[in-house]
Amino acid sequence: SSTPAMKHTCKSASGRPTLLLPFLLPVLLVGGQGDGNAAMDNVVTERMAEESHRQDSAYLLIFIMLLTLTILTIWLFKHRRFRFLHETGLAMIYGLLVGVILRFGIHVPQSTSDVVLECAVNASPATLLVNVSGRFYEYTLKGEVSRGKDHQVQDDEMLRKVTFDPEVFFNILLPPIIFHAGYSLKRRHFFRNIGSILTYAFMGTVISSNLLVGQKIAGALNAFFVGQLGGDFFFTDCLFFGAIVSATDPVTVLAIFNELKVDVDLYALLFGESVLNDAVAIVLSSSIVAYQPTGDNSHSFEAMAVLKSFGIFLGVFSGSFALGMATGVMTALISFYFTKLRDFPLLETGLFFLMSWSTFLLAEACGMTGVVAVLFCGMTQAHYTYNNLSRDSQDRTKQLFELLNFLAENFIFSYMGLTLFSFQSHVFNPMFIIGAFLAVFLGRAANIYPLSFLLNLGRRNKIGMNFQHVMMFAGLRGAMTFALSIRDTATYARQMMFSTTLLIVFFTVWICGGGTTPMLSFMSIPVGVDSDQEHSVSN
Amino acid sequence: SSTPAMKHTCKSASGRPTLLLPFLLPVLLVGGQGDGNAAMDNVVTERMAEESHRQDSAYLLIFIMLLTLTILTIWLFKHRRFRFLHETGLAMIYGLLVGVILRFGIHVPQSTSDVVLECAVNASPATLLVNVSGRFYEYTLKGEVSRGKDHQVQDDEMLRKVTFDPEVFFNILLPPIIFHAGYSLKRRHFFRNIGSILTYAFMGTVISSNLLVGQKIAGALNAFFVGQLGGDFFFTDCLFFGAIVSATDPVTVLAIFNELKVDVDLYALLFGESVLNDAVAIVLSSSIVAYQPTGDNSHSFEAMAVLKSFGIFLGVFSGSFALGMATGVMTALISFYFTKLRDFPLLETGLFFLMSWSTFLLAEACGMTGVVAVLFCGMTQAHYTYNNLSRDSQDRTKQLFELLNFLAENFIFSYMGLTLFSFQSHVFNPMFIIGAFLAVFLGRAANIYPLSFLLNLGRRNKIGMNFQHVMMFAGLRGAMTFALSIRDTATYARQMMFSTTLLIVFFTVWICGGGTTPMLSFMSIPVGVDSDQEHSVSN
Repeated sequence: SSTPAMKHTCKSASGRPTLLLPFLLPVLLVGGQGDGNAAMDNVVTERMAEESHRQDSAYLLIFIMLLTLTILTIWLFKHRRFRFLHETGLAMIYGLLVGVILRFGIHVPQSTSDVVLECAVNASPATLLVNVSGRFYEYTLKGEVSRGKDHQVQDDEMLRKVTFDPEVFFNILLPPIIFHAGYSLKRRHFFRNIGSILTYAFMGTVISSNLLVGQKIAGALNAFFVGQLGGDFFFTDCLFFGAIVSATDPVTVLAIFNELKVDVDLYALLFGESVLNDAVAIVLSSSIVAYQPTGDNSHSFEAMAVLKSFGIFLGVFSGSFALGMATGVMTALISFYFTKLRDFPLLETGLFFLMSWSTFLLAEACGMTGVVAVLFCGMTQAHYTYNNLSRDSQDRTKQLFELLNFLAENFIFSYMGLTLFSFQSHVFNPMFIIGAFLAVFLGRAANIYPLSFLLNLGRRNKIGMNFQHVMMFAGLRGAMTFALSIRDTATYARQMMFSTTLLIVFFTVWICGGGTTPMLSFMSIPVGVDSDQEHSVSN
Repeated sequence: SSTPAMKHTCKSASGRPTLLLPFLLPVLLVGGQGDGNAAMDNVVTERMAEESHRQDSAYLLIFIMLLTLTILTIWLFKHRRFRFLHETGLAMIYGLLVGVILRFGIHVPQSTSDVVLECAVNASPATLLVNVSGRFYEYTLKGEVSRGKDHQVQDDEMLRKVTFDPEVFFNILLPPIIFHAGYSLKRRHFFRNIGSILTYAFMGTVISSNLLVGQKIAGALNAFFVGQLGGDFFFTDCLFFGAIVSATDPVTVLAIFNELKVDVDLYALLFGESVLNDAVAIVLSSSIVAYQPTGDNSHSFEAMAVLKSFGIFLGVFSGSFALGMATGVMTALISFYFTKLRDFPLLETGLFFLMSWSTFLLAEACGMTGVVAVLFCGMTQAHYTYNNLSRDSQDRTKQLFELLNFLAENFIFSYMGLTLFSFQSHVFNPMFIIGAFLAVFLGRAANIYPLSFLLNLGRRNKIGMNFQHVMMFAGLRGAMTFALSIRDTATYARQMMFSTTLLIVFFTVWICGGGTTPMLSFMSIPVGVDSDQEHSVSN
C-alpha cells in the first residue's frame, strides 16, 4: 500500500469527468452497473491503502526524528565534554520520552477493522487462508496478542504497530555492527588472547546460565509457595530466562568500550567473549534438539551429551570461522586479480559491502552463527582485501561501515528506550526482578573470578585483579538479550521476563555503561591508550 | 523468529542434563508434569522459529548474491566497453535467470501449516483476531491469494515469500535514488526549463492516461464482444491501467540517462517530467476522493473539478516544494551555526542523511509527494548545506548517496526480472498486450509532439524535432509502474495488467534503454558533453 499507488490508480478515475466523457458512454451501455460498484470498491480500498501508507511513513519518521535528535545531543555532549552519561544511555532516554508521548500523549481511535474469529484449529498455524464468500485471503500470524492480568485483549493499534521485528535486528542491524568491529579490530591482541576468550565464552556462559537458572528456580519455588508469580511459571521459563540473560552483549560492549581506547588486552577479552558467546549458544541449542526424545533417562546421556556438545561447538565455531575467512579471502582475490576494478570505486565498494553482508546471511542460512562468521570476515577483509582496494575505496568502506555501525547502534538503543512504554502489557514483579539482578551478578562473578584464576595458571601475562573487577562490572547485557526476550511475550511468564530483561538492560547501560569510565580510573586502568600501530584499519 | 534466539532459549534447556541435575529435583516435586509439556512446546516452537529464520536469511541472501553477480558483470561490461545492453537490462536478465531457477529448479515441499477457515465476515478485515481455545492470535491480511483461471489456490510458499513489498520500495529504495538525483543535478538547467517540465508533467500525463484509457476501452469493448478477456474486466480497470502505465518513471530515466551526460536541457526535460509526474498524480487522486459522492451529475461538476484540481495541484506541489526546501535550509542552518559539528564528520554525515530521509517520510505522512519533496531537498542540500560541510563530510555524503542509489537501482531492476517467473499467476493476453503497447506509444506521441509545438511558441531555445523524437522514444516506464501494478493482483483483470506491465517495462528497459545511445547518435545529439561547471555536487 502506498500513496503514489493510490494517486495513480485514481488519477484517471478522476480524469473521467473532466476529459473522459466520450469514453464513458459506450461503457455505460455495456456494464455500467457492476462497474460503478467496482469503482466504489476501488476508491474505498485505495483510500485504506493510502491511510496505512501514511501511517507507516509516520512511524518510520518517528524513529528517524529520534535518531536525529540523539545525534544532535551526542554532538552537544562531545562538544561540551560531558562524560557522566554515555551516548547509548542518552539514546535510551530519548526513546523513553518518545515512548511516553506515544503512550499517553497521542490518542489513536481504536480500529474497528478487527474481527474476532472463533475457530476450530487447536494450534495457531503460521498462515491462515480465510475463505470470504469464495475468495481466499491470506493472513499471516503476527503472534499472540499480549494480554494484561485481566485477560482482556488490548489493541492500541499504534503501539502494536511500533513493535520490533527481531528479523530486522538480526539480519539488518546486527551485521554492520559486528563487521565494523572486526574490520577495525586490533587483530594481534585478539588472537593473542583467543584461548582465554574462548574459555570465558564457552565455560563462562554455561556456568552463569546455570547459576541463573538456579537462582530463578529458588525464586520460582518461593513464588510458588507465596503464590506471587501466579500459577503459570514453569521450569522451562527459568531455563529460557537464564539463557537469554546469561550471555554478554557484543553490541553494548562495543558501544561503550570501542571509543574508550582502553587497554587492548582487556578490550580483546571483553569483546571477544561477548562475540563468541554466540557460537556457544548454537551448540547447546542443537544438543538439546538432538537429545529431546531421550530426555528422560538422564544418566546414560550426560557423558555423551557433553562430548557431543563439544563436538558440535567445534563444528559450528570452525565452520563459521572458515566461512568468514573464505568470503574475506574470496573478496581479496577478486580485488587482487580484477585490478581494473580499482577504476570504479563505486563498484568496488558495492562488491565489498555485499560480499561481507552475504557472509552473515550465508552462515545463518546454514544454521551456523552469522555473528562469528561476519566478525572473522571483517578481520580478513581488513587484513587482505583492504590493501588491494583503491585508496578511494579504502576510505569509502571505512566510512560506510562506520556510519552504518553508528546509526544501527543508536537506533537499537533508542528503540529499547521506546519499548518501555510502547509495550502494552508489562509485568513488573519486584521479587522476580530482585532475584534476576542477584542471579546476573552472582552468575557473572562465578564466571569471571574462578576462570580467571584457572587461566592465570597458564597465561604469561596474567589477568590482573583490576581487569577481573572491570570484566565483572562490565558484563553488559543489552540489545541481543532484548531482541531475544521481545520475540515471545505471549504468556504471563514471558511478559514478566521481558519487563525484567528491559530493566536489566537499562541498568547495565546506564549504571555500568555510565560508570565504566570512573570504574576504569578507580581501577587505575589507563584509558585513551593509542596502542602500537599495527597495520590495521582501526580508526 | 531468529536463530540466536532459538539458541539462547535452548542453551540452558540443554544445560539441564549436563549440569542442572541438582536444580531438577525440587522442580519435579512441584510441577514437573505441566512443565514437561511446556518444555516440549518450547522446543517445537523454537524449532519452527529457527527454520523460518533460516529461510528468511536464505531469501535475503539470494538477492544479495544477485546484486553481487550484477556488479561483477557491470564491471566487466564497463571494462570491455560493451554498450549494446544497459546495466539495468543486465540486472533484469540475472533476475530472470534466478527466477527460472527458483521456479523450476528448487522444489520446496508444500507447507502443511495452512488452514482454510470458512468465516462469516463478508469483507476481509485488515487484522484478524483468531480465538484459539481461549488465546487470541493476531493475523494480518497479506492480500488475496492470487488464483489461476482454474480458481484453485496456489501456494508455493517459497515463491510467495519472495514477493515485493511496495512499502519497501516506496519508503526505502526510492528516496535515496531521487535524493541523489537532486543532489547531483544541474540545477540551473532544471529551473531554466521548469515551465516546459511542468507542462509535460501535468498536461502530458493527463493526456496520455486518457488516451490510454480510450485505447483500453476499445480493447475491452472488443473483448466483451469477442469474450476474450473473460467477463470481469471493468471500466475502472481500464482507468487503473491507464493510470499506472501513463506516467514515465524517474528511476529508469535516471538509470539510463544519468551517466550518458546527454545534452543538459534534454536531460532536464526528461528527468523533470518523470519526477514531477508524481505531484500530478496526487492532484487527480484527491480530486476524485473529494468528488466521489457527487459522481453522477457530471455537468455541474466538470468546471469546478478542473479548477479545484488545479488548486490542489498548486497546493500539493508548492507544499512538497516548500517542505523539501525547508528541511534543506534547516540542515544548512544547523551545519552553519553548529560549526563545531565539523569536528565530527560521522555525526555530520549521519545528521545529513537522516534529515534528508525524513523529508521524504514527512511529505508522505502529510499526504504530499515525497518524491518531489526529497528532490528539492536534495537540490537545497547541494546548494547550501554542501558548502558548510567539512571536506570530509562532503566526500562522505556524495559517496554514501552514490552507493545507496547504485544498490537500490540494481536491486529494483534485478528484482523486476525475478518476478517474471516468481509471480505465480501470470495472465498473458496477446490482444490486451498489443493494445497496451499501441496505447502507450500513441499516448506518448499525443503527449510530446503537440505540447512541444505549443511550448516552442513560447520558448527562446526551441525544443528541436530530434529532442522530441528522443523524448518520444525515451518515455520510459519502469520501477514505479511495476511497484504500482504488483500492489494488487487479486482479480483476473489485475493479474492481466501486471503481466502486461511487466512486459512493457522489459521492453522499455531492453529496447528503449539499450537503444538510447544509438538513437541519440542517430539524432545527432552529442553524448558525454561535460556541461559548464556550475557550483554543484554533480559527479
